[in-house]
Amino acid sequence: MTVSGTKSAESRVRELGLTLPPPPSPLGAYRLAVQSGNLLFLSGILPTRGHEALLVGRLGKELDVAQARSAAHAAALNALAAVKQQLGSLDRVTKVVRLGVSIATDGDVREHPRVADAASELLRDVFGDDKVSTRLVLGVASLPLGVPIELELVFEIGA
Amino acid sequence: MTVSGTKSAESRVRELGLTLPPPPSPLGAYRLAVQSGNLLFLSGILPTRGHEALLVGRLGKELDVAQARSAAHAAALNALAAVKQQLGSLDRVTKVVRLGVSIATDGDVREHPRVADAASELLRDVFGDDKVSTRLVLGVASLPLGVPIELELVFEIGA
Amino acid sequence: MTVSGTKSAESRVRELGLTLPPPPSPLGAYRLAVQSGNLLFLSGILPTRGHEALLVGRLGKELDVAQARSAAHAAALNALAAVKQQLGSLDRVTKVVRLGVSIATDGDVREHPRVADAASELLRDVFGDDKVSTRLVLGVASLPLGVPIELELVFEIGA
Repeated sequence: MTVSGTKSAESRVRELGLTLPPPPSPLGAYRLAVQSGNLLFLSGILPTRGHEALLVGRLGKELDVAQARSAAHAAALNALAAVKQQLGSLDRVTKVVRLGVSIATDGDVREHPRVADAASELLRDVFGDDKVSTRLVLGVASLPLGVPIELELVFEIGA
Repeated sequence: MTVSGTKSAESRVRELGLTLPPPPSPLGAYRLAVQSGNLLFLSGILPTRGHEALLVGRLGKELDVAQARSAAHAAALNALAAVKQQLGSLDRVTKVVRLGVSIATDGDVREHPRVADAASELLRDVFGDDKVSTRLVLGVASLPLGVPIELELVFEIGA
Repeated sequence: MTVSGTKSAESRVRELGLTLPPPPSPLGAYRLAVQSGNLLFLSGILPTRGHEALLVGRLGKELDVAQARSAAHAAALNALAAVKQQLGSLDRVTKVVRLGVSIATDGDVREHPRVADAASELLRDVFGDDKVSTRLVLGVASLPLGVPIELELVFEIGA
């Protein structure tokens, strides 16, 4: 789906019928978001509800591509909830600067981009084609709580 | 321990009885820190002294949680030494923007947050609750020199 | 080789006899580069030509240090091509702020810095000693397309 840049992110969330979950809460001595200048850095965002993993396992071992994509989508919804909690409105985002997607895998996996696209596509559908991010995708050995996906996000915020 | 925001980081280092090690020196063709605008980026910080690893191994294989936490604490002290060398004083830090903690693990580890907290707690105790960072924790396959921990740090620096 | 800071990056590319490849194209719903303020963030850069991997495998398993270094060098050339496409000229880069090097490995590898240096040295030879980056090196489980190297890059751009 290609999305025009003229609508607001908040109106797209409604049009897409998305329900934002409660924002994730930290698992340790850190905070969910820090703003410096016009950049908003989020902590690593997992597919969790509260402190519970929604899905446990690794791509190519316990989980297939469809399951890992659902985890990436769930984490991206958590990221939207975190941004909305932090800024009050998603419409304050002027660019999605960086999306990092770390995927728990063993060594023989090749489908990282298809999995990461589940997060990228949700962010594009919400923020619009003109705010699409850079992306960095890694296959890692393990992630906190045993989840398959962790997202790194940096946003640019309007003055 | 909860720490008031009114004291300086340098005075907290003294109160906590911390001794900063010599700052780490690069293992290749890079530098320890680069500032751009108000952001100070550090290179990946390892639990080393000079070019020697203080501890070698992976969490859940050769090392347990307590050993990995001691490595995270040692790396965080190295990071403080790097910042102090770069800025002259830790008091120039206005925010700890991002702490990344990469932990060498095999695939069945779940205790990443407890390990990462050893670095987060030291930074919080030194810089104060009001400067606590975002955090991104990964379980990776291996790290330079075989160490169990690598820290990524971005700071905001006062004008 | 130590390089003076007085020459331009474009002239050094010519003196070094480097031929920049066509810039890499995204593998999914993201873009190659996003600028925010004076910082230019690149997407993860792989040793690819078009959407094809130039080399597949992991350091310490299918590939040795020399092969992984050639992959790091190829990825760094792709990064230069991406920056030139984005900015028009490499001379607009005022600092290489961050170089991240993720290396696909198994758990027993120690030679990460030598591999990462193949990218660091090319960037230093092109941009000069005074613009040398910070660096973050990880050994990961797997990378997109099965390649051994992924680069993360953040540049500072002149006004």
